[in-house]
This record gives sequence, C-alpha cells and structure tokens, in this order.
Amino acid sequence: MRFDIKAVSGAARAGLIATEHSNIPSPVFMPVGTRGAVKAVSHDELKSFGAQLILGNTYHLYLRPGHEIIARLGGLHKFIGWDRSILTDSGGYQVFSLQALNNIDDRGVSFQSHIDGSRHRFTPENVIDIQIAMGADFIMPLDVCSPYPTDVRQSKEDVARTVDWAGESFERYRGEGGPEKGQALFAIVQGSIFEDQRFWCLDRLLKLDPPGLSVGGLAVGEPKEDRERILSSILPHFPEDKPRYLMGVGTPEDILDAVELGVDMFDCVMPTRNARNGTLFTRCGKMIIKAARYADDPKPVDPECPCPTCRGYSRAYIRHLLSVGEILGLRLATLHNLYFYLNLMERIREAIEKGRYAEFKAEFVADLGRGVEETG
Amino acid sequence: MRFDIKAVSGAARAGLIATEHSNIPSPVFMPVGTRGAVKAVSHDELKSFGAQLILGNTYHLYLRPGHEIIARLGGLHKFIGWDRSILTDSGGYQVFSLQALNNIDDRGVSFQSHIDGSRHRFTPENVIDIQIAMGADFIMPLDVCSPYPTDVRQSKEDVARTVDWAGESFERYRGEGGPEKGQALFAIVQGSIFEDQRFWCLDRLLKLDPPGLSVGGLAVGEPKEDRERILSSILPHFPEDKPRYLMGVGTPEDILDAVELGVDMFDCVMPTRNARNGTLFTRCGKMIIKAARYADDPKPVDPECPCPTCRGYSRAYIRHLLSVGEILGLRLATLHNLYFYLNLMERIREAIEKGRYAEFKAEFVADLGRGVEETG
Repeated sequence: MRFDIKAVSGAARAGLIATEHSNIPSPVFMPVGTRGAVKAVSHDELKSFGAQLILGNTYHLYLRPGHEIIARLGGLHKFIGWDRSILTDSGGYQVFSLQALNNIDDRGVSFQSHIDGSRHRFTPENVIDIQIAMGADFIMPLDVCSPYPTDVRQSKEDVARTVDWAGESFERYRGEGGPEKGQALFAIVQGSIFEDQRFWCLDRLLKLDPPGLSVGGLAVGEPKEDRERILSSILPHFPEDKPRYLMGVGTPEDILDAVELGVDMFDCVMPTRNARNGTLFTRCGKMIIKAARYADDPKPVDPECPCPTCRGYSRAYIRHLLSVGEILGLRLATLHNLYFYLNLMERIREAIEKGRYAEFKAEFVADLGRGVEETG
Repeated sequence: MRFDIKAVSGAARAGLIATEHSNIPSPVFMPVGTRGAVKAVSHDELKSFGAQLILGNTYHLYLRPGHEIIARLGGLHKFIGWDRSILTDSGGYQVFSLQALNNIDDRGVSFQSHIDGSRHRFTPENVIDIQIAMGADFIMPLDVCSPYPTDVRQSKEDVARTVDWAGESFERYRGEGGPEKGQALFAIVQGSIFEDQRFWCLDRLLKLDPPGLSVGGLAVGEPKEDRERILSSILPHFPEDKPRYLMGVGTPEDILDAVELGVDMFDCVMPTRNARNGTLFTRCGKMIIKAARYADDPKPVDPECPCPTCRGYSRAYIRHLLSVGEILGLRLATLHNLYFYLNLMERIREAIEKGRYAEFKAEFVADLGRGVEETG
C-alpha cells in the first residue's frame, strides 16, 4: 500500500491510497459489505458510483462461508468477484456487540456463533491468519472496543489488552509475510473518551510502525462533543504520512467534521441500513419516504440528484415499493443513499484540492439544515 | 392491439402482438410483477433481456397503493416507470386463492384484505373500472376459477357465472371506451377438466367477440394428462387470429407442450419464486444451488449461459449469498432464471419460424433430462 497526500485545506487532506487492486482517492467512504456483498446493490452499481474500496467483516465471513473456503476459491476478491480494494475488520467489534461473547482473557476471546451457537475463539494470531487467508488489501488487528459508557479503570484494561494484542498481531502479520502479500495491517487506537489513555495507546502503537492507523471506540453512543474533543486532540499527533481510518462513522455531518480534523477513511452502515428503513439522504436533509405525503408525489427523491433512482423513479413508487416490501424498493433506496455518500466524498476531495474545505463544509451543512421540503 | 401470425410450425404459432406501448413477439412469457415490480429485478434488467410485457395484479394494486393513486399519477405505466406493455389480471384468482373470500353471489365477490382485514367487493363492472383506471394494455374480466378438484355440478355453476360476468365485463369495457383507450379485454375460458363445459364456455364467450382468449383454471393441481387433454381438445376451436393466453403456466416443459398446441402467452411466478428459493433453471435441468456440493464450486451456474449472473459470479458465491440471505443473491438467482425463460421463448420463436418446432422441443426436453451435473 502507498499513501500520497495530494492537497491539504486546513487539517483536511486529499490523497491517493494505492493498493494492488485499485487507486483509492481519499477521503474515502467504504460501503459496508459485511457478508461479502453490499446489501441490495451489485458490484457493477458500486463501480458506476466510483467505489474503489468496500468493507467485509471477518466475524461474519469466518462463520459463513468460512475463510478456508474463501482461500480455496482464491481469496475474497475472487470469491465475491470484486476486483477493486477490500478492507476486512477484525471481527472483534462483532464478537463484543452481537452479545456472542463468552469469555475474554489475555490470550483472546471465546464466543458463540450468533447463527447456531457453536463455540469459537479469536486470538490476535488467528484473526491475522484468517485475514491473510482471505487476502483483503487492508486488515485490522483484534482489539477491545470499550462500550460507552466505560469507567476509567475498565477502559485502561481494554486499552492495555488492545496494545498487547496489537504487538502480537504485527508479529504474526510480519512473520506470515502479510506486507509482501500486499496487505496493510492498521493499528487501532482505543481509550474511550479518555484523552490520556488515547495518547498512551497511540504512543505504544506507533512503535509498531503500522502502515495505517484506525480510531476505534468512537461512534458507540458517546456525546458528539466527546468525540470531537478526542479526535481534535489526538489526530494532530498521528503521523502525517499514514492513512487515518475512523471506524464506523457516520452521518454526513460527522464525516464532514472528521475530514476537517484530518481523517482519511470512513465506513458506516448508515446509507445502506437507513435506505432499507426508508430514510433517504438529500442535500436538504433526510426524507422519510414512507410518509403519507409522498403517496402521490410524482417527483424524484431529489430533483437535482443525478443518481439512477432519481433519474427513473418517483417518490410515490419508491414509497409504494418499500411499503409493500418489494426488493426493488430496497435497491432503489440503497442506490440513492450510496450515491449521496460517494458523491459527498467526491465533493469533499474537490473542495480540499481547491483549498476551500471550510467554506464547502459550511455550505453543505447549511443546505442539510434547510429541510427536505426544500428539495423542490 | 393488433395480432399477426408470422409463422407456424404444426399448431405452434410465432406472431407479433402490437400494443400502444410495444411490439411483443409471441409466444411470450410475462415476468410476474404482482405489486408493480418484478421481484428482485429492475426494469432495465428486464429490458436488457428483451422483455416487452410484464404482468401486474389487480387485487394487490387495488389494495396498495390503490387504483385512484395510480390513476392520479398517470396510470400504471407511468407510476412504475415501465414504458413497454403491461397486462393486469382480474384479481379474481387472488380473491379466491388467498382465502380472503367472504362471499360470492351472482353480482360479484365480497372479500377481506389479506393485509388488514378490511372489507371489499369486486364486481364484473368495478374490476373493469379499476383496470381502465390503471390503464394496462391487456386486462382480464372477473371470473370464477374453480379449484382442483371440483365436481361437475360446482364447475358448471362456476362456468355459468364466469360467462355471465364476462358479458357484463364486456358491456362495461365497451361502454367506458376501453377499446379506444388501447386496452384489450380478454375472455377467460373456464370449465375445470370437463371438456363439454370448456366448449360450452368457449362458445358463449366467442359471441362477445373478445380481442383475445385466456384459458383459466388449469395449472391448479390437476394431473398433467387432464391439462393436455383439455388444451388439445379446445385450442383447435379457438379463432386463429386472436392471441391465446394460458394463465399461470408453468415449467419449461409445460410451456413447450402448450406452445405445441398453439398457445401464445404465458405467465408464471416459477422463474422468480424458484430463484428466491435457490432453484436455478439450466439447460440440463434444475440446480439446487444451496446443496453442499456447490460450497466451493468456482464455476458459474451454467458455464454456457451468457446471462449477467453466469458471466460474473460463481456457484459458491451465489450459494453463500442465498444461504446468508443477501439481497444480491436473490437478484443474481432471479436474473439467471428470467434470462433462462426469456431466452427459451426466443428460441421457441426461432424454431417456429424455421418450421422445426417439434425437433427443437424434443432436443430441449432431452437436454433438460440430462441432469444438472452435465452442465459442465
């Protein structure tokens, strides 16, 4: 992996992340393809929106179909038929958040499958092995993502474990030739909302000389002010030449804020999950498409949006499809929201390149506040 | 509507059905879009397979979103954004088969919505009004579709009612200017497996000079021999110059048999519903894609199939997607099956035009019997 910064605007950075599979302009938003598919859309549709990088989930893919099958079929790219870049997370977050957790100790986590209750164990080492077998371009170490709220003492324990596991992960990663296989292992900074713990964690992780850095344990329910405080204090201490990935974030406003602080990579289920629930993103705010007022509205979701959904379909039809549960409704809504997110990132990059990121952000946020009835 | 026969091969006919919206080569298979969308696929995908005609369901569209909303939005074509032809059925079959039926009398049927239990009534007249409001190119009268088995006496009553209602339907249809609006009302021949009743029904319906004829009440569970017996005795008595629609049929073999007897139009949920259940049609028979043997099979469903699914995705990936319930799996499986059906119809038309329908059918059926492991 190579990372080059092309332009900055304040602390915001526009760059290019090059993997063996594709060149990824940053800041980048990764559509989430938990089980090897971004829900409701096709690879071709993602490509037509310029997506260069999608996310897969180690926990889910390990359980089904299993990394051995994926490896036997030539790796994740080949298995799913996606020839651009892929990032796999460590699966740790799912083990903790899906209440599958059975036991955590210094050597790893034992858990039960949320599908069939079968027992499994993740260790720093086998999570690397699994991800090397799957062959994603970006991989993540097993970490402990503290829930919010977490007390100082518990967070300290979680951070210490995260740091220990990161060391073991990098040892395994380098021992197994991960770098030579074109896979970039990131280190994940934890520490909840405690600045000193975040700094302590960052210092330890930097000693591992990771190709990139992730910020974990945010967007887990903490107040926005705490998130901003943590990000704005730690990000200036991140090495400039490494990509920075803010895990699980977020709303368009959250992304705009984090880009301003210097974040390069994002992932979130929001555009896809919200779409399936009937919440559509527009430049003037969110549209709850199932509202009765759209029942006979012949206009597209956003008359100014050039996405395939807005070019071909009315609010009334999309509302109908989602109301009766038609798959086409899930598709059209998801396409629109992903277009919105990926187009937002493109505009963010342009604004940075033009050195006017702060102005762009102010305009965009002002528009979002206008209210959806202003879409026309 | 205009119907021209271009070629015959035995009793099989290749023709062109022209509506205000499109030219439909026949024999034609209509993908079923019950609620205004063919499940899991987009209009563009259907068009890319050459689909010129899809089916919508009056019962479902009347309940949601309602024909008034559809009319207010400019009719069904405009509402769903499909500019080719549409056929709507009468909704009678659903009223009977969804166990929504409350009461049937000489003037119509009272029923409860399967969605919210609300009470409704269909009459020959209002079913025409609803379909004229929606504006499909082909519309169907309210009929009584006898279940199988039905005794002679009950079937006779059902047929008599079907004939009475057909008279009232055509009166309303002509009174409301249906023909001038470019809508073709078909008459539906009922009579279960009783030849004399089928002939009696046909004779009465022909007096109405319908633009086309449907055969209803078959493919409802009767033995294949009974269906063949009824079709082969009544079809030679259908007027040659009117399209013949065999409702709800069927498997590839059923379609091949019915085309040989002179049927021009078909609809069936089989390609779409089977796809969602993981049953894929191939030239060598059906593939149960969730079978364990496909878990690490890198081949496409049918290596000789040029459909988008077979060009881009493996059996292993489709099996995975359907096993975990990913929408992309439903899409890919549905695309493949619809391609199979629409391509079959294209090959049927070619064979008729070449005057070698019987040979084509024999070859195709022999291939279907080879077994799916023979796909390669």
